[in-house]
Amino acid sequence: MTERLDGKPVADAIDSRTREAIRARPGPTPALVSVHRGVESPFRFYLRRQARAAESVGIRFRESALPPGAGAADLAATLRELDRDPTTHAVLLEHPLPPPFDFLDAISELRAEKDVDGVGATNLGRLVAQRSVHVPAVARAAIAIARHYQLPLEGERVAVLGRSGTVGLPLAIALVARESGLNATVILAHSRTRDLRSALAGARTIFSCAGRPGLLDRELVPKGAAIVDVGLSSVPDPSARGGAKAVGDADAAALDGWASALTPVPGGVGPVTVAELMASVVRARDLLDPARGDR
Amino acid sequence: MTERLDGKPVADAIDSRTREAIRARPGPTPALVSVHRGVESPFRFYLRRQARAAESVGIRFRESALPPGAGAADLAATLRELDRDPTTHAVLLEHPLPPPFDFLDAISELRAEKDVDGVGATNLGRLVAQRSVHVPAVARAAIAIARHYQLPLEGERVAVLGRSGTVGLPLAIALVARESGLNATVILAHSRTRDLRSALAGARTIFSCAGRPGLLDRELVPKGAAIVDVGLSSVPDPSARGGAKAVGDADAAALDGWASALTPVPGGVGPVTVAELMASVVRARDLLDPARGDR
Repeated sequence: MTERLDGKPVADAIDSRTREAIRARPGPTPALVSVHRGVESPFRFYLRRQARAAESVGIRFRESALPPGAGAADLAATLRELDRDPTTHAVLLEHPLPPPFDFLDAISELRAEKDVDGVGATNLGRLVAQRSVHVPAVARAAIAIARHYQLPLEGERVAVLGRSGTVGLPLAIALVARESGLNATVILAHSRTRDLRSALAGARTIFSCAGRPGLLDRELVPKGAAIVDVGLSSVPDPSARGGAKAVGDADAAALDGWASALTPVPGGVGPVTVAELMASVVRARDLLDPARGDR
Repeated sequence: MTERLDGKPVADAIDSRTREAIRARPGPTPALVSVHRGVESPFRFYLRRQARAAESVGIRFRESALPPGAGAADLAATLRELDRDPTTHAVLLEHPLPPPFDFLDAISELRAEKDVDGVGATNLGRLVAQRSVHVPAVARAAIAIARHYQLPLEGERVAVLGRSGTVGLPLAIALVARESGLNATVILAHSRTRDLRSALAGARTIFSCAGRPGLLDRELVPKGAAIVDVGLSSVPDPSARGGAKAVGDADAAALDGWASALTPVPGGVGPVTVAELMASVVRARDLLDPARGDR
């Protein structure tokens, strides 16, 4: 039997700690602002989840939609203003952003403490230097779910499939780092890896961030490996609301009885990511607290 | 026979391109300033090589030694001044720095363009984001020597031994990145890797950045693998000048006839690193040129 690793109990445990962290420490209510283009996009779905999660743990949440026709300079100005605003502790920016916007340039308008998802250059660099401020919530979530279910991780050989600057690479660095205490040996594979099967052969846990539905099957996955499915794709489904459904990288039916454990999509890494994001908002507030030395 | 991969022809080729780049483009002479504590340290040796290399290619070079008793604030002030100085294009800072200095905090006083060795948070983060400005010279050198001798690299399985924020991790990211065009599948191993031998089993090229003399022998290295020895340690040697000699991670005698190729230490990655550093100084000058938009 393949164990199904639900995200909900992991997210609930993180939310409990977040509520406790807010209660335990007086000071301003942690405040998150989500900046987006104000148009239909996959980010809209994530936005609704942010609003619900924030309310549930006691974080002040608001959206900031760019006006129609806004350009890169308007986005930069919005972010600069939020960076200066002492009542905003954490800012999230829609990702990815199409041209003329430049996600990396825009997010760099924020100081590291307010770049709550840790995807700006300073935060990514501090992760490499093993002096992290914020680590991307999705990387934290993938690790949290693996830890919660005690998947082979610390000092083990694990694989990360995918090398994006916002998901695969930060996750690989966090897994290998001394700082996290995980000390994993990481195989970094991707779409251009030749003979993916043999690259994954020695991996006990596979973090899949490829965004390719059905990629992981019995051909590719070593028997008995555990899978954390970070992939998230939308595939047509006439029976679903909106005519599409969310799927991960793993072919769950094919892997049943083959993989030792698998996080479902939806309901696996997703809810844990939102919970980790809220935990980061509280940390952002604490880092920015004048008593601890705002800059 | 194990092929000996000398660094000199690689460094010479890079130096030729650097001289050509300086000649080809009018403008101020590229200028590098090396900041250090002014005390005996391994960095002093590197410093003399920088001075010679700079002179040889036509780069203006000067040292800036901190006065005795200088602290972290003095170092920060020195770097801020160099960041503002329009006649300085590139700044190198002694590494590692003992307390009370904080290398990462200090180097962050420089804009990314002047942090010529790419070890500040912004540069490391831009490397992760695959929009790099400067990549650490040692990582560039390890890749340059591997490319020059056509070691298996592009799309191949390679191993990086070592996970420091200034050497192992930047090298791993550069090898895996789409940006570099290398698209390697990377095994990231380190001192806490269990069963290093089996972790390295599938690697065709091994980049060793462990700093542990004699680590790589026939036990560990798969037969026929190529080795780029980035390790640099000093071991006692009564017959050597100064009573010590530089050695790498590879046991060259043991690997002779076993590894397909090996970079020597000294004379391998070292001279190429200095050449890549000089190439980065010219790039820094070009990035900062007002005609291309200084900030």
